[in-house]
Amino acid sequence: MIKITLPDGTVKEFAKGSTPMDVAQSISSGLARNVISAKFNDTIVETVTPLNEDGHLTLYTWNEKEGKKAFWHSSSHIVAQALEELYPRIKLTIGPAIENGFYYDVDFGEHTISEKDFPAIEKRALEIARGKHDFKMHPVSKTDALSLYKEQGNEYKVELIENLDDGTITFCDHDTFTDLCRGGHIPNTGIVKAIKILNVAGAYWRGDENKPQLTRVYGISFPKQKLLKEYLEMLEEAKQRDHRKLGRELELFTFSQKVGQGLPLWLPKGAALRERLESFLKKAQKKAGYEMVATPHIGSKELYVTSGHYEKYGADSFQPIHTPKDDEEFLLKPMNCPHHCEIYKTRPFSYRELPKRYAEFGTVYRYEQSGELHGLTRVRGFTQDDAHIFCTPDQLDQEFKNVIDLSLYVLRSLGFDNFTAQVSIRDLDSPEKYIGSVNNWEKAENAIINAATEKGLDFVIEKGEAAFYGPKLDFMVKDALGRQWQLGTIQVDYNLPERFDLTYKGSDNDLHRPVMIHRAPFGSMERFIALLLEHTGGNFPLWLIPEQAIVLPVSEKHEKYAEKVLSSLENNEIRAQIDARNETIGKKIREAEMNKIPFMIIVGENEEGTDTISVRRHGGEDLGSLTTKEFSDLVSSEINSTLKSFF
Amino acid sequence: MIKITLPDGTVKEFAKGSTPMDVAQSISSGLARNVISAKFNDTIVETVTPLNEDGHLTLYTWNEKEGKKAFWHSSSHIVAQALEELYPRIKLTIGPAIENGFYYDVDFGEHTISEKDFPAIEKRALEIARGKHDFKMHPVSKTDALSLYKEQGNEYKVELIENLDDGTITFCDHDTFTDLCRGGHIPNTGIVKAIKILNVAGAYWRGDENKPQLTRVYGISFPKQKLLKEYLEMLEEAKQRDHRKLGRELELFTFSQKVGQGLPLWLPKGAALRERLESFLKKAQKKAGYEMVATPHIGSKELYVTSGHYEKYGADSFQPIHTPKDDEEFLLKPMNCPHHCEIYKTRPFSYRELPKRYAEFGTVYRYEQSGELHGLTRVRGFTQDDAHIFCTPDQLDQEFKNVIDLSLYVLRSLGFDNFTAQVSIRDLDSPEKYIGSVNNWEKAENAIINAATEKGLDFVIEKGEAAFYGPKLDFMVKDALGRQWQLGTIQVDYNLPERFDLTYKGSDNDLHRPVMIHRAPFGSMERFIALLLEHTGGNFPLWLIPEQAIVLPVSEKHEKYAEKVLSSLENNEIRAQIDARNETIGKKIREAEMNKIPFMIIVGENEEGTDTISVRRHGGEDLGSLTTKEFSDLVSSEINSTLKSFF
Repeated sequence: MIKITLPDGTVKEFAKGSTPMDVAQSISSGLARNVISAKFNDTIVETVTPLNEDGHLTLYTWNEKEGKKAFWHSSSHIVAQALEELYPRIKLTIGPAIENGFYYDVDFGEHTISEKDFPAIEKRALEIARGKHDFKMHPVSKTDALSLYKEQGNEYKVELIENLDDGTITFCDHDTFTDLCRGGHIPNTGIVKAIKILNVAGAYWRGDENKPQLTRVYGISFPKQKLLKEYLEMLEEAKQRDHRKLGRELELFTFSQKVGQGLPLWLPKGAALRERLESFLKKAQKKAGYEMVATPHIGSKELYVTSGHYEKYGADSFQPIHTPKDDEEFLLKPMNCPHHCEIYKTRPFSYRELPKRYAEFGTVYRYEQSGELHGLTRVRGFTQDDAHIFCTPDQLDQEFKNVIDLSLYVLRSLGFDNFTAQVSIRDLDSPEKYIGSVNNWEKAENAIINAATEKGLDFVIEKGEAAFYGPKLDFMVKDALGRQWQLGTIQVDYNLPERFDLTYKGSDNDLHRPVMIHRAPFGSMERFIALLLEHTGGNFPLWLIPEQAIVLPVSEKHEKYAEKVLSSLENNEIRAQIDARNETIGKKIREAEMNKIPFMIIVGENEEGTDTISVRRHGGEDLGSLTTKEFSDLVSSEINSTLKSFF
Repeated sequence: MIKITLPDGTVKEFAKGSTPMDVAQSISSGLARNVISAKFNDTIVETVTPLNEDGHLTLYTWNEKEGKKAFWHSSSHIVAQALEELYPRIKLTIGPAIENGFYYDVDFGEHTISEKDFPAIEKRALEIARGKHDFKMHPVSKTDALSLYKEQGNEYKVELIENLDDGTITFCDHDTFTDLCRGGHIPNTGIVKAIKILNVAGAYWRGDENKPQLTRVYGISFPKQKLLKEYLEMLEEAKQRDHRKLGRELELFTFSQKVGQGLPLWLPKGAALRERLESFLKKAQKKAGYEMVATPHIGSKELYVTSGHYEKYGADSFQPIHTPKDDEEFLLKPMNCPHHCEIYKTRPFSYRELPKRYAEFGTVYRYEQSGELHGLTRVRGFTQDDAHIFCTPDQLDQEFKNVIDLSLYVLRSLGFDNFTAQVSIRDLDSPEKYIGSVNNWEKAENAIINAATEKGLDFVIEKGEAAFYGPKLDFMVKDALGRQWQLGTIQVDYNLPERFDLTYKGSDNDLHRPVMIHRAPFGSMERFIALLLEHTGGNFPLWLIPEQAIVLPVSEKHEKYAEKVLSSLENNEIRAQIDARNETIGKKIREAEMNKIPFMIIVGENEEGTDTISVRRHGGEDLGSLTTKEFSDLVSSEINSTLKSFF
């Protein structure tokens, strides 16, 4: 008999050689129907793997990340079989699960494959799935494994096997298909009820551009047809909400090959949007005791040697800037913290003057390979809503709470309510990896956990995920499409105060090291605006949107009245324009809808006669006839309800 | 007889060989007493130079720039004589007049000279001056000139003479002193009534660091003792107002060797000041129809090749930034215009949509040699209050007027009333030097001159001073010490629209080239703030100053009331702090005076009892007992009176 400990702590006895599926069965037949993967003592196993010793067992269904991974990995085997049958003599390489679905990298040889071939692949793959073939793992000797693939002429699998140790190699079979595989499958192909090939793309063998180019076939699969339908709808919606598309349509930003890829140019409406976001945060930060500073976008190489960034990132970054005489070297600023440390060093501080909170919308430049650039989410230059708090270790607790308050205020004011956090702490087994005293680390970790708990954050603690210089908290938000985005960090830092020899005079009159907190609620303006675009589909919160209203005169006759209305709106600080074009009112409304303007103000005979306006909300709701004062009050009250006051 | 034409156009006849002094005498004996230099047909002559042909003559007194130049140049001869007498065997090199005074570069050989030696030099120089020795020019052959200085062992003069043509060489004598000299002297040494040696500094022979180092002796002289006294007082005041000193004392900005020289770090108070200045201008610009944009601080090298900047400035600038793979090259942005051209190119424009006015507080980086850096006035990174207007040639006139309006509003709101302008136009004799059609140039030049005239600007027209790409207008202001500063430019540009192939669709449906206007009322934020500091001595206009008031509780007992007062002030948007230190009220007032805080709010027993405040103005004026409401109204009304509304 062996003892199996379940995640809730219960321990059950089973005959040696029982499988995870047997354990599931012993709990409930419902669970047995749904279990598709398992982890035994930190190793992913098959549901049919015999367990021969005592240990901890976790069972996974489709609902867990690990279950999905097994599901999609198994699906890649099914699709590989379909491809082999449909395209003779192709060479399979690797086929892992990814965040959403799976891919298989294939050397298609004489064949080519395109979107029009996808239905046939999907059809054959689904036929295979319906065969309910079990996935069966079995060990194979290195000699046998090599001879199989040499016989097939598949040099990729041969290369993979050559790098493996004899005795560790396994194959996985289902139906007529065999593949080199480490394991992690669902029980049988029948669980897969829906398969979609999403697209194909070029990919180098082993990611090396000097090696052969393969075709990467992306797919996704689901245990229910309905889930696939929902996923495809979400994809379509995501395409509509792609921030690059919306950014172009709403004239927010652009890129120019001549300025350089990954370097956004903010057009008037986008620049105004950014500035409103910045003003909003500046106001909250001012209330929270931050002081703005401004620092240059370059710094001497020496600065980053001191901070340690040069040693760590120098080779992969934009290279140093030389002077004509070549007697100095500068670097584009990759982060603001070294500059803020130098500002802190301008004069001595007493403990009574701390915390100092230096904030800057600091534009930084980081080199990214051109293939990795993507709209505003992966750029080479971006503006951090950065701040560095210099405080005593005793102040850390309160400061951390304040930063969480500020971050939550910011996120909620922008319509994000669905967020979680991750707290990264030390690996207690490797104390040598961390800088700073054990006492301070304990203080800091407790401060973070207390603050997160007290503020009611939904958070997980990840042991060993802290940076060497301090623990941190990361915010994650789910957008309207359910996609997870990593946002700003709150990071404790014991390292830079040391490297820059920062001090304050304590109550004991001795010099002490301050602690630093790095924080950025938005993370970066660029990435945050991208997220906001995709989350809202361009329907920004009313306080933020570039144009809050548009005045639509029914005909030329009412243009003068329209201008009177506009100036009254502007006096009430409503951002509006007039569409005075010689077009039908219907066309003007359609375009205003397309431009996602929250309110359309229609003015004609009636309105001019009664000194009122007719208001239509984006989406179609008719708010009827209002005075401009009533309308302005409506706008203010809607804004105030989103932008609850801070503290 | 010869005919002499005077500046007012009158023509007088004189005997051939008459001197400028004779002409002065013929006009009035007062003028003859004051005339110290002259120009005959574009050449500076001595007052005793015989005139042998018809020509135009201008006479100069101390009041003219040219008069001062002759005065100071002559004074350098006097000081050189004193130096030769006091320090045997020194070698004189060159001794020109400069903007304020003169210098003489001297190889002092075995001697050294320092501040303590100045009185003796001044004393001897003044004795020489009092001798009323005439300055007498006479030609000398190259052979004789060389042999004189070879005999003296003065290799510097020898080198100078070797580069001159025989027949063009003159010496100037006075008293026992002779110097190689091109001329331009006052009649005699007796006119010089006050001489001051200001300082000594190192200077390389011919400015070449590979050549011997000389000692540059700086001096200044005046026709009246009183003028020297005033000048020295002004120098002392300028020292007190040095923006580097004030910037440190008021904690506005700092420099860090580690960040890099010439790269200012803006401390909280300075950053807030900057932001207020920017907000002020943004507001005015918004009213004037500008749109803010935002662009990166780097651009691909290609961008500046297109703009022509790379060819022109590349070698003397910060060198290109390479990527790790070395497959791309970027440059630190030296100006914003190429970026704004790329923004203009984002979409096609119709003439009906012009002008487009793109504004950006764009931080640019330009390499300056470290020896040329100076506080905030000569830096390597600075923020331009930049904007580019893209308009049709027909709109230029109105746009130029608008830009002048905006510039005047900005300057006047900041307390500058004493400004002039320079309009730089083409050299009509060299039409080949300019890009753009003659017709457009005429339009543009007329637009500028009309606008400057209509707006009542005090301006001069400089022919041939226009850039090859367009005419311009430069603003100059005089600060409180009477020193002239060059401020922003309004520059017409026909070149960049050509190089970037910018177009708009005209009413004729054809594509046309827009005209560009570059403009920056402040010029650069850094330089402008330096000027503002030196102009105001740190007593910024009330709307701009970092701290408008400080609340001074008489004792700890009144701290709570002080906080109530502070929060009432803050609600009225007054920037204030409390000085709650355990110090005497006298000391607190003294420090608030030193920190140039406009209002001191004293609160004690009386004030708390009557719910009032006692207000003292910076400088000492007692405004008596006020309610916080009365005080806030006073502040608002003072601000509004400076910040007259725009348009």
